[in-house]
Amino acid sequence: MSIFAKTTNTFALKSLADGFEIALNGMPILRHTMDQPMVFVGIGAETINMHRGNFDIQDYLIERVALRYAKIDENGDSYVVRLSKYAESEPSIVFSIKEENKRLKLELIQSDETINRFWFRVTADQNEKVYGCGEQLSYFNLRGKHFPLWTSEPGVGRNKKTYVTWQADVNDHAGGDYYTTNFPLPTYVSSKKYYCHVDTTAYADFDFRNDEFHELQVWDVPQSIVFEAADSFLELVEKITERFGRQPELPEWTYNGIWLGIQGGTDVVEEKLQRALDKGVKVGGVWCQDWQGKRITSFGKRLMWNWKWNPEEYPNLDQKMKEWKEKGIRFLGYINPYVAIEGDLYKTASEKGYLALNKQGEDYLVDFGEFYCGVVDFTNPEACKWYKSVIKNNLIDFGLDGWMADFGEYLPTDVVLKSGASAKIMHNAWPVLWAKMNYEAVREAGKLGEVVYFMRAGFTGTQKYCTLLWAGDQSVDWSLDDGLASVIPAALSSGIIGCGLHHSDIGGYTSLHGNKRTKELFMRWAEMSTFTPVMRTHEGNRPYDCFQFDSDDETLEHLARMTNIYVALAPYTKHLVKINAEKGIPVQRPLFMHYENDEEAYKLQYQYLYGRDLLVAPVHQESQQTWNVYLPEDQWIHLWTGQKYKGGYSEVDVPLGYPAVFYREDSDFVELFREISNL
Amino acid sequence: MSIFAKTTNTFALKSLADGFEIALNGMPILRHTMDQPMVFVGIGAETINMHRGNFDIQDYLIERVALRYAKIDENGDSYVVRLSKYAESEPSIVFSIKEENKRLKLELIQSDETINRFWFRVTADQNEKVYGCGEQLSYFNLRGKHFPLWTSEPGVGRNKKTYVTWQADVNDHAGGDYYTTNFPLPTYVSSKKYYCHVDTTAYADFDFRNDEFHELQVWDVPQSIVFEAADSFLELVEKITERFGRQPELPEWTYNGIWLGIQGGTDVVEEKLQRALDKGVKVGGVWCQDWQGKRITSFGKRLMWNWKWNPEEYPNLDQKMKEWKEKGIRFLGYINPYVAIEGDLYKTASEKGYLALNKQGEDYLVDFGEFYCGVVDFTNPEACKWYKSVIKNNLIDFGLDGWMADFGEYLPTDVVLKSGASAKIMHNAWPVLWAKMNYEAVREAGKLGEVVYFMRAGFTGTQKYCTLLWAGDQSVDWSLDDGLASVIPAALSSGIIGCGLHHSDIGGYTSLHGNKRTKELFMRWAEMSTFTPVMRTHEGNRPYDCFQFDSDDETLEHLARMTNIYVALAPYTKHLVKINAEKGIPVQRPLFMHYENDEEAYKLQYQYLYGRDLLVAPVHQESQQTWNVYLPEDQWIHLWTGQKYKGGYSEVDVPLGYPAVFYREDSDFVELFREISNL
Repeated sequence: MSIFAKTTNTFALKSLADGFEIALNGMPILRHTMDQPMVFVGIGAETINMHRGNFDIQDYLIERVALRYAKIDENGDSYVVRLSKYAESEPSIVFSIKEENKRLKLELIQSDETINRFWFRVTADQNEKVYGCGEQLSYFNLRGKHFPLWTSEPGVGRNKKTYVTWQADVNDHAGGDYYTTNFPLPTYVSSKKYYCHVDTTAYADFDFRNDEFHELQVWDVPQSIVFEAADSFLELVEKITERFGRQPELPEWTYNGIWLGIQGGTDVVEEKLQRALDKGVKVGGVWCQDWQGKRITSFGKRLMWNWKWNPEEYPNLDQKMKEWKEKGIRFLGYINPYVAIEGDLYKTASEKGYLALNKQGEDYLVDFGEFYCGVVDFTNPEACKWYKSVIKNNLIDFGLDGWMADFGEYLPTDVVLKSGASAKIMHNAWPVLWAKMNYEAVREAGKLGEVVYFMRAGFTGTQKYCTLLWAGDQSVDWSLDDGLASVIPAALSSGIIGCGLHHSDIGGYTSLHGNKRTKELFMRWAEMSTFTPVMRTHEGNRPYDCFQFDSDDETLEHLARMTNIYVALAPYTKHLVKINAEKGIPVQRPLFMHYENDEEAYKLQYQYLYGRDLLVAPVHQESQQTWNVYLPEDQWIHLWTGQKYKGGYSEVDVPLGYPAVFYREDSDFVELFREISNL
Repeated sequence: MSIFAKTTNTFALKSLADGFEIALNGMPILRHTMDQPMVFVGIGAETINMHRGNFDIQDYLIERVALRYAKIDENGDSYVVRLSKYAESEPSIVFSIKEENKRLKLELIQSDETINRFWFRVTADQNEKVYGCGEQLSYFNLRGKHFPLWTSEPGVGRNKKTYVTWQADVNDHAGGDYYTTNFPLPTYVSSKKYYCHVDTTAYADFDFRNDEFHELQVWDVPQSIVFEAADSFLELVEKITERFGRQPELPEWTYNGIWLGIQGGTDVVEEKLQRALDKGVKVGGVWCQDWQGKRITSFGKRLMWNWKWNPEEYPNLDQKMKEWKEKGIRFLGYINPYVAIEGDLYKTASEKGYLALNKQGEDYLVDFGEFYCGVVDFTNPEACKWYKSVIKNNLIDFGLDGWMADFGEYLPTDVVLKSGASAKIMHNAWPVLWAKMNYEAVREAGKLGEVVYFMRAGFTGTQKYCTLLWAGDQSVDWSLDDGLASVIPAALSSGIIGCGLHHSDIGGYTSLHGNKRTKELFMRWAEMSTFTPVMRTHEGNRPYDCFQFDSDDETLEHLARMTNIYVALAPYTKHLVKINAEKGIPVQRPLFMHYENDEEAYKLQYQYLYGRDLLVAPVHQESQQTWNVYLPEDQWIHLWTGQKYKGGYSEVDVPLGYPAVFYREDSDFVELFREISNL
């Protein structure tokens, strides 16, 4: 290998005795030698079984070979690297190294076509932390574990040691694990202040267990691998969102109050809404999943999945929506990318060939738990056009101002797609195609920033195409991996890779295996949600087993208090949402984003900064009178008592209605916070 | 590659366009081509954590490379094969192919020293079945699964779907899985009537999931791989035991009756024994684990682990043993390869340097659950000599006629051994060193065939060195994977690889997580044990939670009946035990061993032939009035009713005391069976 050294504004490449090293922003980030090769390639034969969105994935690894032999040639502004298995063999991988928009980009030019497994090592430090990889619910810092990246159901329980997980596994293959998520992402952020993105939608598994390197596995040869560094985390998230896109601001009406999740028809909605209003609850919207009809299964209450107003279930809804709107209360509905076989949308889609097929050329029907649906084929431009028209006509034009755009994780790996693309490669892409469909429908209707849809599934591109994330289906409990607490790392991890607007079902969703939502859980969850961009309730899958917002007066009064705080806080929240739209700096932020030198700040995953000036430590355990909070070195004022705090751990009182929240003494919003402290 | 074809009496080797093929007894067994290489090699970095004999083993596979390039040279009577990664590279593996004692032997001559992972493919047929791999408790036919081969605790529950397994995992990392066993073995038997043995003690994983090949993984380069075929299964087990050794016959006194597992001191033993005798129970021995003292832990009753008579616990035992012996009742004890730190044996071993050390050069202490022990270092000849003298002096000379030689599976992978051998390599060898120690002590005392010890741990060599297997610690329940039923595949799998004498704890052993032994379970287990070489009870780890042989009169009367049958059957059983000693044909046999053309016979794992002439289908479920039995085509007579049956499935009555047992009409033992039917 020739001796060379080249420095651009972005990276520095230098030769080693038997390899090369690349530094980014002065830090060594890639290193290849004969002994420690950077790339391994191989062949695997996977088995993928889906059980209603839960995947059992096994790999039989046939070969994994180090590419020890590297040849580098300069080629204009870039370098071409040829990696081979042995000295005189044809290269297995050829890629270019170049600077592109101030990013370091490794672009794959050519590879041995038999390769379907690819491993790439990035230099790591022992003390380095790693964040991101989408919406991660169990761990914010990913170091010490590996993370399969495959969009799926998040799992019920998500911890093999819990009874709920065990039961969910035994009965439904549905327990999940620490890494299962609706929104995986082949992008991570290092505490060394760089991000790395692998451009692929194939199954991936990022392994952060090794002290010396991160190993990124992809079941395909990725198109490119990009690195970008920054001098601060704020600058870094700005760069990430410059690359991947940013969400528009939330509609103004969002800040009118909570979105009440109600089902059961017009009269029920009217009645429950009125009761909430009478008790002083501030309401911004009613969110009725069953606006298009419902069905009952053994899992609980499910929806009809034929996307248009169901006037039997919701008589006079068209009129009612107008009345509510005049009171500042918008109507939100529900849609997903599947059409139930009983409906007329299915009939149309089937006739026109808009559905994904099975290998026999018939409509591929997916089992969603006692009912079957067709999969609208998003690789078919005609199907997309049609489904967008469904959104525009049946949702937007009908008067919906928002909806849950559910699912996206279930694309079976054996469907036949119109484009001819492999379903295994498209599986992870699906949530983004679904997000983009919603985005374009809203944009084409001229309603961006006025209409909002919220999603749980995601992948690369969700940053731009999804107007609001919700954390998916938590269990209605206090478990760290699947309960209230799990929402916090979910918000932080998705925030750090560019999805800065996050919220969750107040009280959680999944009630199974004896799990029932308690009053206290509902109240604590509402408290946390007050300090997120959107407050929204959900009845849960088994409403009668779950405590509801209107189950008693005390809860309604507590909710009234929390929604009053939410509305009072709106000027601050709007300010944060605007920053997110402009710069991609998330609304909920890890402490280290503003306190980079505080080592403790890198370890915390159950408290967050709500913008620059509020520190929120939600109570995520049962029966707590006090709560232990970490404050980074600064001048902090406890929101409810006005007591001053400096850095370090402090025990504070947390009666119901008074979660542990602090504001910075030198905030521009001090007056607002003082007003709130009197609410 | 040159074109060649060579046929010996044992195998035929022929060249292919880009490889070679070896046939054994006319069937293609090994095949190597560029596309489908026979050998893969690689490098892995394993993590092995032990939790009281339960192992958590993870492998980070760094490389796995096909050795596609083969060169073969004739070399006298054998061939030398050089396998390389690429055309002109140095061979990674060189081995010879030769005939040795009518076996096909692949002997490793040389290999790249960096290799620590080795995969070897054997040609398979789609309908082929595979058996063996030691004592397998969940599956007799191993096809469709892979089997890690690493001696360990068998696990509590052994099925991730059961509550007991889940609880054992959560609380103690102890749940196990379908493959966990005390006695793994890198030897399998194919339904194509050959066996394959891999000569290694390293961690191995035999994978029988692929339709076209079996893939044998070893975490080392094995010394050799041996194949031997036969024209019948009977001939095959004879060949297996010719290669690995056979057990001596059981002592004559065995057939006097059951071995009653009793603890609690001389008086308790005397009292319980007398009660059993009074009720007509035939007793061959009393087996007192706590002859050397006991301790109580949270797991239950445990032993003192200082191997000599404890006269405080067992006053006058020396005299009593003589009295009992005169009545035909022998005394059996207990020993294992560890010495508890509180005892004088530990003190001696520690002073003399007979114990395995830790990396700091101190005695390595193993946690056995609230007490600690030293590991007698069997790689130290002086330590072996000393421990043999303990067995000879403290056990044999003291008057013991048998004992449980417990454990052997716990060798930690980080101990430092006297011989300098790697503990990872010695871990699987340990049970056999332990067996050999017992064997030599008994042989040196001139007591082979008179004294009997029984073991649960095993590996290659157990066939010769272990006088009797017991099935380890079943749960006291009806579960398929860890209860009564699991003992049957355990007997069949260990029998087919040469351990033809098998028995189990009547009623099972492990009572944990709410599991308690019922009266019915005890009785059904006793019924099954009547048709095994040895009947023996165990109090279980929590005697007060478990139904005991003397818990009520009805049970004693049932046991009296079963032991009477056992004793009456002794001439037949002795005949079978003799055949096992002479030819290695196991006492308990799979149906296909005598009915090779019966396809159904290859599928059954919960019924067996007891010798040539009895078919036993133990009732392994609760509350059964009838039992469905499969009979291969023959003239069968139901033992209890004399009713005649031909082949096929039949439903028979199975009241307590009358398990489903049939004899062959043209058996030489018909008279004996008729007598028994009247008992």
